[in-house]
Amino acid sequence: MWIMIKGFPLVRNVSKLPQGSFRIPGLSHSTLAGSVLHGMKEARHYFVEVWLQTLAPGARTPIHRHSCEEAFLVLKGSGTLYLTTNMHPEFPGNPHEFRIFSNSTFLVPIDDVHQANSPLYSPLFFILFLFFWRRFTYDDWFMPHTAAKLLFPIFWDAVCYQTPLERDEL
Amino acid sequence: MWIMIKGFPLVRNVSKLPQGSFRIPGLSHSTLAGSVLHGMKEARHYFVEVWLQTLAPGARTPIHRHSCEEAFLVLKGSGTLYLTTNMHPEFPGNPHEFRIFSNSTFLVPIDDVHQANSPLYSPLFFILFLFFWRRFTYDDWFMPHTAAKLLFPIFWDAVCYQTPLERDEL
Repeated sequence: MWIMIKGFPLVRNVSKLPQGSFRIPGLSHSTLAGSVLHGMKEARHYFVEVWLQTLAPGARTPIHRHSCEEAFLVLKGSGTLYLTTNMHPEFPGNPHEFRIFSNSTFLVPIDDVHQANSPLYSPLFFILFLFFWRRFTYDDWFMPHTAAKLLFPIFWDAVCYQTPLERDEL
Repeated sequence: MWIMIKGFPLVRNVSKLPQGSFRIPGLSHSTLAGSVLHGMKEARHYFVEVWLQTLAPGARTPIHRHSCEEAFLVLKGSGTLYLTTNMHPEFPGNPHEFRIFSNSTFLVPIDDVHQANSPLYSPLFFILFLFFWRRFTYDDWFMPHTAAKLLFPIFWDAVCYQTPLERDEL
C-alpha cells in the first residue's frame, strides 16, 4: 500500500531520496528521518536526525565538534576516524586515529573534535544518528577553540526556520 | 588505535556485539548505542536507542505500539509492515499493509500499532532508531487497547534500573 503521511509516503526508497553535499567535497548526504523535516514530534526540541552519508574515495569531513553525541554504523567500505579524547584546553591537538570498517559502530562523545575520511581506493558508506545542536569546524588540529567556526543555523535549519536561534559561544 | 571509552572500545565490530532475542522467536537483536547502556548523556532521559535486528525467515514482531516515534532502515531482505494509521477507538483494527525492501526507510508514528514480518524464504535485516518509552503488545488486531499488555520495565530496563518506574495506563 502506498499512502501519504504528513506529505511523505510512509515507506521511502533511500536511493530516491534527495541528496545534498553541504558543500563538502566528496560528501553525499540523505536525511532518512529528521525532527524538523519529517515531524519526529517527540524529538522536535532535540533535533534528532538519522542520516545516510557517503564519502567518495579520498574525501574527508571537516574537523569539527558538536554539543551532542553521535552514533555511527559503517555500512560499506573502510576509513579512518580521527578523534581527540583528551583535548588540549586551547585547541584540539593531535587526534587519536581509529580504523573504521564495514559493520563497525562507534559513538562520538559530546564535543570531542573529530574527522572521518575514506581511503583513496574506495568510498565509505555510513549511517549516523545524532541530536544535532551547535557545530564548530576547525581548519586544522591546532586551531584554537575560540577561532573555530560556528555553523549555525545549518543547511536544514536555514530551510526550516524563519528566525535564526540565538548563537552560543564557547 | 584501540582504546577504551567508558568501558567499551570506541570502534566496535557489530558482528561481535552481544545478541539477544527478547524472547521473540526468530528475532536477533544487537544494541549499537543506547542511552542507558552506553551513556548517551544528552539523551539519557529520552531512552534513545540504535538497534540492529534480524528477523529469521517467516518471523514476525509482536503487534505493538509505543509512545515514541521509530525510524527504520532496511539493510537487506524484504518483508511487510502492518500499521494502523486510523485506529478504531477500542482496538487497532485492520492494519494497512506496506511492502518494505532493502534500502527502504520508514517512520512509525507515535502510538500507531504495528508489526513487521519477513517472508518465508529470506531473513530481514534492519536498523532502528527510537526514543523508547512505554510499549504495549496485542495478541491480534482486534484486542481492545485496554487489554494490551504493557511491557515495562523491558529487557534493558530490567538490567539498568534498580527500581521500576511508575506505570501509565491508556
